[in-house]
Amino acid sequence: MQQERPFDLLNRVISQQVLIRLKNNLNIRGKVTSFDAHMNIVLDNAEELDANGELKAKLGTILLRGGNIIFVSPV
Amino acid sequence: MQQERPFDLLNRVISQQVLIRLKNNLNIRGKVTSFDAHMNIVLDNAEELDANGELKAKLGTILLRGGNIIFVSPV
Amino acid sequence: MQQERPFDLLNRVISQQVLIRLKNNLNIRGKVTSFDAHMNIVLDNAEELDANGELKAKLGTILLRGGNIIFVSPV
Amino acid sequence: MQQERPFDLLNRVISQQVLIRLKNNLNIRGKVTSFDAHMNIVLDNAEELDANGELKAKLGTILLRGGNIIFVSPV
Amino acid sequence: MQQERPFDLLNRVISQQVLIRLKNNLNIRGKVTSFDAHMNIVLDNAEELDANGELKAKLGTILLRGGNIIFVSPV
Amino acid sequence: MQQERPFDLLNRVISQQVLIRLKNNLNIRGKVTSFDAHMNIVLDNAEELDANGELKAKLGTILLRGGNIIFVSPV
Amino acid sequence: MQQERPFDLLNRVISQQVLIRLKNNLNIRGKVTSFDAHMNIVLDNAEELDANGELKAKLGTILLRGGNIIFVSPV
Repeated sequence: MQQERPFDLLNRVISQQVLIRLKNNLNIRGKVTSFDAHMNIVLDNAEELDANGELKAKLGTILLRGGNIIFVSPV
Repeated sequence: MQQERPFDLLNRVISQQVLIRLKNNLNIRGKVTSFDAHMNIVLDNAEELDANGELKAKLGTILLRGGNIIFVSPV
Repeated sequence: MQQERPFDLLNRVISQQVLIRLKNNLNIRGKVTSFDAHMNIVLDNAEELDANGELKAKLGTILLRGGNIIFVSPV
Repeated sequence: MQQERPFDLLNRVISQQVLIRLKNNLNIRGKVTSFDAHMNIVLDNAEELDANGELKAKLGTILLRGGNIIFVSPV
Repeated sequence: MQQERPFDLLNRVISQQVLIRLKNNLNIRGKVTSFDAHMNIVLDNAEELDANGELKAKLGTILLRGGNIIFVSPV
Repeated sequence: MQQERPFDLLNRVISQQVLIRLKNNLNIRGKVTSFDAHMNIVLDNAEELDANGELKAKLGTILLRGGNIIFVSPV
Repeated sequence: MQQERPFDLLNRVISQQVLIRLKNNLNIRGKVTSFDAHMNIVLDNAEELDANGELKAKLGTILLRGGNIIFVSPV
């Protein structure tokens, strides 16, 4: 059986909600619609959350640049 | 059917308004006229917005360097 | 005998608990399920710890981007 | 018709005045004489401006390293 | 005679104690067990030291990511 | 006629005085003796200047790492 | 005659004392024993100096990672 790889997780969460922690103290939640090898990710219904997880802004669809990501977490 | 890729979103927003969040607490809105594989983007009628989304400066046409981008969002 | 290489350590800790120190004063503990050549790591049952090692947030499964890592330590 | 690319803008502004926003809260205005694929740019009659767009220093000819650029804007 | 290269020093300190100064005001001491071309280093019996060289935390075995290193010094 | 390129400027200022603005609020003046494709530059009679352009330290010959450079300006 | 290149300076200072200014307000002096194409440098009898050039710590032999260097200066 082929060993699991980290990006397999991104494949599994296509069309699912994830929480993404970014370097600039930003937290963004949304539904994954696509990603690429640089961890660039497109989210639908994206929402910016504050440090307590409260809604800060509705962002709609966003293309998030992978270099800003600390971690991605299915919710 | 070929799987969607993040840069397909940029293709779809050619000639459309986007909001771009940058690393340096900068927010810029404008009409996309072109982009490349480094996420360098040319915007027409670009406007710099403050943290509340208010107009801060009119910039005209700008070539924005992709490395500064956190996310791009069609508005 | 082939000389040991740093990533051999990651191979040995698959399915084991590790503590990961990140650049942004973040400490994360969890069970390694996969990793790749960029030190991107997937953790199950991930927990964010504060500077004193106390539980700060339960994160569930996370894909952690390798570029943020200072060190990984089996616990 | 070949699709427009971001660097085409730099081609069009050779010998023209541009305003360049840099990462280090620097704003520089000058006439473009050359550029390369790294967005390194040579400006003639370059001027450093303060945050209000006022002249801060005359710099003459400068070779500006592309990695510092946020955006380039024809004025 | 082939000229000495910097990584020859790492070869010579396999199984020896080193002090490593990191970018984030971190100092770590430990026994080198392996390293690679990115200066990723595995240390056994690693210890985090404070600015005065006093023991701050025992870390056990760690995989240290090379990009964080300022210098490595045999002790 | 071949189009001018930014590094042609460096060729023209070999043996000439330049002022170099660096990322870390450093300003260095000196005579260019060599450079390479990474914009690493060797200066003779280098001088560190303060923000007002006053002499802060005489540095003699220095090898300056290109990644720190914001701009190079012939004086 | 082949044009001088910046790294020729490093060749010339093998076994000589240099002063190295680093990004993190660090100044280190020592005798160069080897270097590589990434400007990684091994110094013998290395000393950390404070901002006034006074001795702050004796470091012995160190492998200094090139990415931290602002400039190298023969003393």
